[in-house]
Amino acid sequence: MTPHRLCERAEALGALHPNLHGKDFLLSYELPDDAIGFVHRAAAWLHDAARAGLSLRVFDGGVGVSIFRDKSTRTRYAYRAACSLLGLQTEEIDESTSQIAHGETVRETAAMLGFCTEVVGIRDDMFLGEGHKYMKEVAASLEESSHKGALLGRPAVLNLQCDVDHPTQALADLCHLEQVFGGLEALRGKKLVMSWASSPSYGKPLSVPQGVVALMTRFGMDVVLAHPPGYELLDEPLAAARRFAKASGGSFARTSSMEEAFAGADIVYPKSWAPASVMRERTRLLRARETGRLADLEKQALAENARHRGWECTDEMMALTKDKKALYMHCLPADVSGVSCEAGEVSAKVFERARLDTYRQASHKPFVVAAMILATRFADPAAELHRIASRAKPRRGA
Amino acid sequence: MTPHRLCERAEALGALHPNLHGKDFLLSYELPDDAIGFVHRAAAWLHDAARAGLSLRVFDGGVGVSIFRDKSTRTRYAYRAACSLLGLQTEEIDESTSQIAHGETVRETAAMLGFCTEVVGIRDDMFLGEGHKYMKEVAASLEESSHKGALLGRPAVLNLQCDVDHPTQALADLCHLEQVFGGLEALRGKKLVMSWASSPSYGKPLSVPQGVVALMTRFGMDVVLAHPPGYELLDEPLAAARRFAKASGGSFARTSSMEEAFAGADIVYPKSWAPASVMRERTRLLRARETGRLADLEKQALAENARHRGWECTDEMMALTKDKKALYMHCLPADVSGVSCEAGEVSAKVFERARLDTYRQASHKPFVVAAMILATRFADPAAELHRIASRAKPRRGA
Amino acid sequence: MTPHRLCERAEALGALHPNLHGKDFLLSYELPDDAIGFVHRAAAWLHDAARAGLSLRVFDGGVGVSIFRDKSTRTRYAYRAACSLLGLQTEEIDESTSQIAHGETVRETAAMLGFCTEVVGIRDDMFLGEGHKYMKEVAASLEESSHKGALLGRPAVLNLQCDVDHPTQALADLCHLEQVFGGLEALRGKKLVMSWASSPSYGKPLSVPQGVVALMTRFGMDVVLAHPPGYELLDEPLAAARRFAKASGGSFARTSSMEEAFAGADIVYPKSWAPASVMRERTRLLRARETGRLADLEKQALAENARHRGWECTDEMMALTKDKKALYMHCLPADVSGVSCEAGEVSAKVFERARLDTYRQASHKPFVVAAMILATRFADPAAELHRIASRAKPRRGA
Repeated sequence: MTPHRLCERAEALGALHPNLHGKDFLLSYELPDDAIGFVHRAAAWLHDAARAGLSLRVFDGGVGVSIFRDKSTRTRYAYRAACSLLGLQTEEIDESTSQIAHGETVRETAAMLGFCTEVVGIRDDMFLGEGHKYMKEVAASLEESSHKGALLGRPAVLNLQCDVDHPTQALADLCHLEQVFGGLEALRGKKLVMSWASSPSYGKPLSVPQGVVALMTRFGMDVVLAHPPGYELLDEPLAAARRFAKASGGSFARTSSMEEAFAGADIVYPKSWAPASVMRERTRLLRARETGRLADLEKQALAENARHRGWECTDEMMALTKDKKALYMHCLPADVSGVSCEAGEVSAKVFERARLDTYRQASHKPFVVAAMILATRFADPAAELHRIASRAKPRRGA
Repeated sequence: MTPHRLCERAEALGALHPNLHGKDFLLSYELPDDAIGFVHRAAAWLHDAARAGLSLRVFDGGVGVSIFRDKSTRTRYAYRAACSLLGLQTEEIDESTSQIAHGETVRETAAMLGFCTEVVGIRDDMFLGEGHKYMKEVAASLEESSHKGALLGRPAVLNLQCDVDHPTQALADLCHLEQVFGGLEALRGKKLVMSWASSPSYGKPLSVPQGVVALMTRFGMDVVLAHPPGYELLDEPLAAARRFAKASGGSFARTSSMEEAFAGADIVYPKSWAPASVMRERTRLLRARETGRLADLEKQALAENARHRGWECTDEMMALTKDKKALYMHCLPADVSGVSCEAGEVSAKVFERARLDTYRQASHKPFVVAAMILATRFADPAAELHRIASRAKPRRGA
Repeated sequence: MTPHRLCERAEALGALHPNLHGKDFLLSYELPDDAIGFVHRAAAWLHDAARAGLSLRVFDGGVGVSIFRDKSTRTRYAYRAACSLLGLQTEEIDESTSQIAHGETVRETAAMLGFCTEVVGIRDDMFLGEGHKYMKEVAASLEESSHKGALLGRPAVLNLQCDVDHPTQALADLCHLEQVFGGLEALRGKKLVMSWASSPSYGKPLSVPQGVVALMTRFGMDVVLAHPPGYELLDEPLAAARRFAKASGGSFARTSSMEEAFAGADIVYPKSWAPASVMRERTRLLRARETGRLADLEKQALAENARHRGWECTDEMMALTKDKKALYMHCLPADVSGVSCEAGEVSAKVFERARLDTYRQASHKPFVVAAMILATRFADPAAELHRIASRAKPRRGA
């Protein structure tokens, strides 16, 4: 892609009004279409500009703080890569949950870390009712300290996965779909299946399926959510999905049959999650330190999972899909039967065929993060993209 | 603040002769007035330049090493933020105390880490008689290796808190006082109380109170050190405080009554610390690995602390101060009664009123570190500031 | 050194055809002379350019990933310093051996980490038959993902020490020898002794002696490998050493007498290592989780080491060398008798005399890494060096 073409596309992006400047990016379904549209298109723009070899630097010094309250290799890398490409150094805050969970400490830590910081990326997806709440607490503390003049600016809080939504994942998924199908318009009327799948582990977060259905319904797709009875998700993102489907001319349906869901599907996204009720009980037991009951809960949940071993994405399942070749998606790592576990979400054959596609799917994430940073940190982010393209500075070379 | 005004202020700073180039910043009370004055004024300058949106970059690559031999979130962040703003990447050396404590290892590690390094920031505040000694050992090793041509340059060692002094804290405190009172001259004759305060923990370092009294006495303030009998500090920084008070036209007094200290005070700094004698015994027992006696010492020290529960900064105490509204200072985190502990240094009401002030107090630290780096790494640091202002490059924007 | 002279030297380097662009740097003895020659001379060039105060930045954003599967302070620092000088941020992947060892996971992790990455530096020297294999797996995964368009480019894999070779160490050693003896030509006919030495620990990797003999034999030196019977190295690097010695007009001999080896030596490199057979058995037992037998193996190996306490580099040994003053080399940290252990590789007196020399020896490592990055990431790396010199941008100063 030429710098000239990138300039034109940056100008076109100027027509959108993301209205994210000075704000946070927490739950995508609470944000208006222009905000989502801008981040998605800016991410694709940045990816293309990077492929064209352009320097994406927009900061000459400054810090991107990250707080990972759950293990992460992929999202951590995506966050750091994005910061590096934009010119920020990353600083990871490694406080244990207990240290940072305390109300007073959140306010204080947020203030301390905000002095020279542009953005605070947080992953906190372990406990229902906690992750999003924590991000809002950090944001409120930054807001207060900034308002009272204790900070140089008001850093943006980015949701790198909470208990409710995983916007960097879902937006990367959207970028992938756009590339595979040749544009957003081509997604209209496509059947996307977000399906529960079998797993030998329990307690997987709900944020990916919730984020995916609440995003893809905005683009006129026929989104189907499939899971065995009991594997409920939270109400709020599903209500958003219904609302978006109606507004976009798509649809949002639910089923408790994987076969029914897969029938004629253009895209399948088979992934395990824990029932919301189990996750709620788990949080309650952890708070009450009832260790014995936690073990019981895990045992019951695994037994329940085992009753649904048939929910595996096999060649037989794939044969039900549109032309027998639906696009397989996964946020990785997948539980691949016979490879990373005995019996899991997907057969080795299906996964191996789709493996490089899942890498391509993931490859958008650093650029989604970078687009979120641009959108939240600059009053006119499209103008920044335009300057990146018009200066056309190579990223490599003395 | 306009770049033009920043240029003028940088020129004025050129009149000072900090004489820190190629040296370390270890104990502030051993440094002449021009060194202290330059770092303090350069820190304020950099803070203003950052607020004005200027890029502070003075390095195009290079490393700032940090060695934290005690936990740290705030100072670590301040160090990294400072390095990032100046254009250095940070590299933290995570050697356990035992590995790095060995004489040979110190020399070797210092040499290894000095090859492409501009600055080595060290926190080592756990053991009386050890922290400052260790920093001098690292500095001597760098000096030797540099002198013999094994290093590209002679990195500066910065004291990020030792057993004797905490210069980045005390200088940030000074920047805060200057802002609150409207200039250094306005500090003359102000009564500042550095007071011991009650805590449910023992073994807190002595470096903050020592650093504060040995710095503030240089500016004509009436500094009062208050603590219960037995909670002695080290002699050397107190002797320096007496000397500075005499030279600056201020005063340095001691009392064993918190009420007497607070009476008519303009500024109060209530903070717990361990008696020097307890810290000495603790170091001795740790060296001798007398674990049983360590537990006894802790029990005795906590019992002694408990006898002084009245040393808490409450509304009643604050009512004794000048116009009942002395400035409350703390290096954070504070032991807030009913919030972070049952009964501690300060009541929740007093702390909540002062909370944002303590954030503002802390906000100066990254710029103090940056000023120390400039002063130790450049022959004419004021000229660097002038160039930063005259090039007026924005830190943000493509 | 003037920028003009650096330009001339960069032009001269253009005559070499390293042919490393888009490739990895894994085993130096598998690479042709021009590749080795370019990296060695570019490292010396970069060291001189850094001493001349030039900015070495060739990247405006981007990531250097590191994976350390064994503890490292020195090499980690060298890698980070090199990345920092060239303009890359470093991101360390901290996966436990078990997590990353799995075939599927290697492919996936490599792809995830390669999106915006220029270089992946790996240390994996713990198990014979594993380290080099792992690096090739990572490289193959990057190759595949890049070929299929999932990555922005194909990151280079750099060997920061494997079970077979330690090229950054051996090339830094070569840079040191060149400086001490005044040029590569001066090394012809010099006797270099790579000798086993006594150690109170067991299980030290074989990669340093293997890398040193397989590199130095390329430069016409008379290389002698000395060790007690049984302390065998791997066949392949020794075969390469024999081949290189023949081609370069040097020689490669072996002896089981330290005294015989030291006689008339110009350079001595006394360092402990474990017998290849012990390392093989150790890997086998670890895989089989035979913990009891592992303890037995350690006991036997240490008893065997103890039988060779005479293999210590003492004043008496040094007296046998050329003019009694051979150059002492070590990759550090050394087992210094009476200092870091009771009885080890070298006497305190010999080591203290050579200490600063060993620091100088190590000082080349960041520049060797930087040269490897340049050679693997740019089609015409000599042209990059030329641009660095001709733009002559200072690394320090606003």
